Amino acid sequence: MQRIDSPSFFIGKGDDELISFGSGQPDLAPPKEVYEILPTYRAFKYGLVQGQENLRAALAAQYPNATAESFVITNGASEALDLSLRALFEPGAKVFLPRPYYYSYPHNVRLAHLEPKFYELENGKINFETFSAGVKDCKAVIINSPGNPTGTVQDLDVLKKIEKLCDELGIWIISDEVYKDLIYERENYLIEGKKVLTLNSFSKTFAMCGFRVGYVYARDEEFLRQVIEIKTHTSMNTNILGQEMAFEATKVPHRYVEQQVKIWHERRDLIYKKLKELDLDLWKPEGAFYVFPKMRNPNRVVNDLYHKYKMIVYDGTWFGDPERVRFSYALDVEKIEEGMRRLKQYLGKEYKAD
Amino acid sequence: MQRIDSPSFFIGKGDDELISFGSGQPDLAPPKEVYEILPTYRAFKYGLVQGQENLRAALAAQYPNATAESFVITNGASEALDLSLRALFEPGAKVFLPRPYYYSYPHNVRLAHLEPKFYELENGKINFETFSAGVKDCKAVIINSPGNPTGTVQDLDVLKKIEKLCDELGIWIISDEVYKDLIYERENYLIEGKKVLTLNSFSKTFAMCGFRVGYVYARDEEFLRQVIEIKTHTSMNTNILGQEMAFEATKVPHRYVEQQVKIWHERRDLIYKKLKELDLDLWKPEGAFYVFPKMRNPNRVVNDLYHKYKMIVYDGTWFGDPERVRFSYALDVEKIEEGMRRLKQYLGKEYKAD
Repeated sequence: MQRIDSPSFFIGKGDDELISFGSGQPDLAPPKEVYEILPTYRAFKYGLVQGQENLRAALAAQYPNATAESFVITNGASEALDLSLRALFEPGAKVFLPRPYYYSYPHNVRLAHLEPKFYELENGKINFETFSAGVKDCKAVIINSPGNPTGTVQDLDVLKKIEKLCDELGIWIISDEVYKDLIYERENYLIEGKKVLTLNSFSKTFAMCGFRVGYVYARDEEFLRQVIEIKTHTSMNTNILGQEMAFEATKVPHRYVEQQVKIWHERRDLIYKKLKELDLDLWKPEGAFYVFPKMRNPNRVVNDLYHKYKMIVYDGTWFGDPERVRFSYALDVEKIEEGMRRLKQYLGKEYKAD
Repeated sequence: MQRIDSPSFFIGKGDDELISFGSGQPDLAPPKEVYEILPTYRAFKYGLVQGQENLRAALAAQYPNATAESFVITNGASEALDLSLRALFEPGAKVFLPRPYYYSYPHNVRLAHLEPKFYELENGKINFETFSAGVKDCKAVIINSPGNPTGTVQDLDVLKKIEKLCDELGIWIISDEVYKDLIYERENYLIEGKKVLTLNSFSKTFAMCGFRVGYVYARDEEFLRQVIEIKTHTSMNTNILGQEMAFEATKVPHRYVEQQVKIWHERRDLIYKKLKELDLDLWKPEGAFYVFPKMRNPNRVVNDLYHKYKMIVYDGTWFGDPERVRFSYALDVEKIEEGMRRLKQYLGKEYKAD
């Protein structure tokens, strides 16, 4: 029996009996509009490395004071982050990361030959004193609100204080806002500033994970020039058809997003209630689609649940928190309920006996 | 009037009067089969980071003794090269590059925090003595046959000697074979060995540049594991629809490729003949779709031809050769002829007077 030690183990795993609270991807299909261009699509040539102009112009319309020139379309937010970090490279420079973190962040920082420096979140929230005490010797910080794996949305006043402090200190803010539309308690707050890099993608809002269309929106021309230069050599234009599909998504009425949020909201309420009934210690998530309860020995939980209960959950250790387990609630209500029944059994048996 | 100092200047430039011998992309459309799946395509979820299994299995069938596990599908050969170099990273390690080179190579090497070490080609060909004298302190070499910008195909016996020497010395060979199907004088020679990485893409053979589907085929498990790990964090799966279109391309009868080669062969013969008639000094290209004649002050040629004759050609300096100009012959016979008429005028006027 193979010991599970990273999320990669689960990729491609799936059968009818398996209940997956694993991967962070929507189960609902993208809006039908993104497929409607396919039958007549015939382009094939290289596009601009920076990205198609129609898509960049449509994105610019979503951000105050932005122009199409301020965007680079990338292979998902993953490449947006990779390119941003590579563009910020400087020998010995540090990047300030919250812990728990999205599991790729420390890898991304090291792959760009930068050094991660961690600070601890408190129940998924940034403590501004902790933040300001540690940030000073860093070249950049990554902010992820709404956050993965925490499901928390950072407090407005904290985000504004961070925005101001980093601006004063000349520190780059990489604001990973991929969950900005999946937020339940307030509107998203767009972090702004000359040295702010806003990352986003079509994966979460429009369920287009597999098409890998994301972007970085930057306010600094030299940074943009650098990113385009790097991408020219490392991947060239993002898949042109994916970009055209993303452009169609930008035209979908906002009603679509509202309907999605309503569904996620219901699921959030359900799984939160169920986990509380099972006496697990967790906070109520305010955005994204993750709950992050405290559990003893999370790696054992992951292995037990998979091998004995046909259920996928992720070890908090993979996200820098060895005392919690991540549940993605990207699955329908019936499956969430069945998963909670299985979890209840497990808690009464193996987990209790541990 | 803007001075032209890199190929990026020309991206997106195009009008009816402009004759472009610039960008290295086929003008002919991909086989119709790659579009036939579009009307009913409905997938949207993440795929395997390594790439779709059907596509990898189809590629494995094209290489002796390969299995689907030996391939990673990437955002074009560009990402295949970037990931390969990042996987081979080691502080201070050198990568041996031919000069002239494909213009991204030195950038790719430096972006992976490796150090390029150059050796000179002789009329576009590798001199094995030069190669073997310089390669010993390198961790890897990049071989590009058929080559860009040279259009040369390396001699069989030289490739075999390089294969043997690198195997003995434990040096990685990154064999960029993106033009392997566009070859006129002999069959392509597949470089083999435990430490050989074969890069290829669907861009040139199937004119699918904009869809960005390429791959690295490796024989070393640990290397493959590394590449997949890096790609997990930096871009995740390659666009799933692009992969499905590429899979369709693998099923296209070989007749398609033969017809393409016939067209490129005719164009090669035409442009070579015309440039010889204009008394330019060049070798006859054996593959890819470039000719690389000697010209004085190539940057001035590029600027003059663009601004005064509405013709795009590339400065050899961008490829490491300050005495030549690159012409891509990815355009139809009439345009090649018109371009040659304009070049003739230029040679008799500004160029002569220079």
